[in-house]
Amino acid sequence: MSEILAFRDARDWKQFHTPKNLAAALSIEVGELQETLLWKTDEQITESLRQTEKFNRIRDEVADVLIYALLFAEATGVDPVTAIRSKLQGNAEKYPVETSKGSALKYSELPSTPKS
Amino acid sequence: MSEILAFRDARDWKQFHTPKNLAAALSIEVGELQETLLWKTDEQITESLRQTEKFNRIRDEVADVLIYALLFAEATGVDPVTAIRSKLQGNAEKYPVETSKGSALKYSELPSTPKS
Amino acid sequence: MSEILAFRDARDWKQFHTPKNLAAALSIEVGELQETLLWKTDEQITESLRQTEKFNRIRDEVADVLIYALLFAEATGVDPVTAIRSKLQGNAEKYPVETSKGSALKYSELPSTPKS
Amino acid sequence: MSEILAFRDARDWKQFHTPKNLAAALSIEVGELQETLLWKTDEQITESLRQTEKFNRIRDEVADVLIYALLFAEATGVDPVTAIRSKLQGNAEKYPVETSKGSALKYSELPSTPKS
Repeated sequence: MSEILAFRDARDWKQFHTPKNLAAALSIEVGELQETLLWKTDEQITESLRQTEKFNRIRDEVADVLIYALLFAEATGVDPVTAIRSKLQGNAEKYPVETSKGSALKYSELPSTPKS
Repeated sequence: MSEILAFRDARDWKQFHTPKNLAAALSIEVGELQETLLWKTDEQITESLRQTEKFNRIRDEVADVLIYALLFAEATGVDPVTAIRSKLQGNAEKYPVETSKGSALKYSELPSTPKS
Repeated sequence: MSEILAFRDARDWKQFHTPKNLAAALSIEVGELQETLLWKTDEQITESLRQTEKFNRIRDEVADVLIYALLFAEATGVDPVTAIRSKLQGNAEKYPVETSKGSALKYSELPSTPKS
Repeated sequence: MSEILAFRDARDWKQFHTPKNLAAALSIEVGELQETLLWKTDEQITESLRQTEKFNRIRDEVADVLIYALLFAEATGVDPVTAIRSKLQGNAEKYPVETSKGSALKYSELPSTPKS
C-alpha cells in the first residue's frame, strides 16, 4: 500500500483522486480485465493463462483493479483488511454453511435455517 | 487471503468461480460501489463518509470488490503483491515524475522526455 | 436494428453472442465510455465535446454501448421499445412528480405520498 | 426518446444529468444486468428467460441500460442513429467479412487482407 501512495504522491496525483474519479477508474479497469476473457470459453481462458504474454496482460489488469480499489479505500478512509474481515463475517451469517454449501443461490433465495 | 479461501471452501463454491464468473461478479460489485456515490457532489460524498451507516455501506462495497479481485487472482494464478509491484514499475516508466507531475494526461499524451 | 443484425450475421458471429458474453461486452464498452471522461471536470468535458476528434471518440463509444445493448436484447428476446415504455411506467409510480421533482433521492428514500 | 426526456423534465432531473453521472449510472445498470446472469450456465439462463418473473427482471435491466445510454447521448449531443451507423461502417472496415467470418479474434489479431 505504501508503495502505491508513494507513486501517487511523487506525481502529485492526489488532487485528481476523488472517490467518484477513483470509482470510475476502477470500473474502467474491471472492463479491461473482462476484455482479456471476452468471447473465450473457459477452456480457452485456461489455455491463455499458460501463455506468458496473455498471462502477463491478465496479471497487469488484476494489478490495476487492486491499485484503484486500494486508492479508493485510502481516499474514503476505509481500512481494507478490516473491511474484508467485517464483510466475511456478515456473509457468514447470510450464507450459513448448512444451506449454502454447493449452492449458487443468493442469500435471499436460500432455504431458511431453523433457529433452535 | 486465507480467510477468503476458507470461506469459499467451507461452502464448496470453487466450482462456480471460473475467471469469467468472478470478473462478472467484480464488475457487479464495482457497480454497487459506484451506486453509493451516484448523483452526489464531492462535498456530499465527504459528508456521507462521516455518517456511520453510509460509511459502512461504502466499506462493505470496497470489501466486496477486494474479495472478488483476490478470488479472481487466485483462480488465475496471479500473485497480488507481485502483480502490483510489477505494474507500479511499468507505470513508473510510462509516467516519469518529470513529465507527469500534477498532470492527468494519459501516458500516450505526455510530452516525451529527452533521453540523454 | 436490422443493420446491426445484418452485420453480425454476415460474419457468422451469433455463435459467440450468448447473453453472458454480450453483457460482458456491454460492460467493457461502458468502461471505455467512462474512460473518455476520466479525471476531467465537467467543464473540461464540455470543452472536449467541442473538439471533433474527442467528440467522435465519445460518439463511437455511445454507439458501441447501444449496439451491444441491442444485441443483448435480441439474444434474450427483449423488445427494446416495449422494455423502455414498461420501465418508464414503473418508474413513474416509484418516482411521483410531487415528491421527486428536483430531488436525486432514490425512491426508497423519498417521502411517501398520501393516497387519498 | 421523447418519452424519456419528458419523464426527466417533469422531475427536473436534467440538473443531475452530467455526462459523468450518466456514465456512472449506465455502469451501475450494466452491473445489475450482469447480476441477473451471475453464476448461471448458458442453459440456466435460457431456462430463466422462459420464466415470466425472471424474464421481466432482465427486460427491466435492459431498459435501464438503454434509457441511460440514450440520456447520455442526449447530454453529449450524440445522435444515436447516426452514431450506430457510423460505427458499423468503421467496424465493417476493421472486420472484413473474408477474414472475420466465424472468428472471435480482435481486428488487430486478424490476418491482413491483401489489397489488390
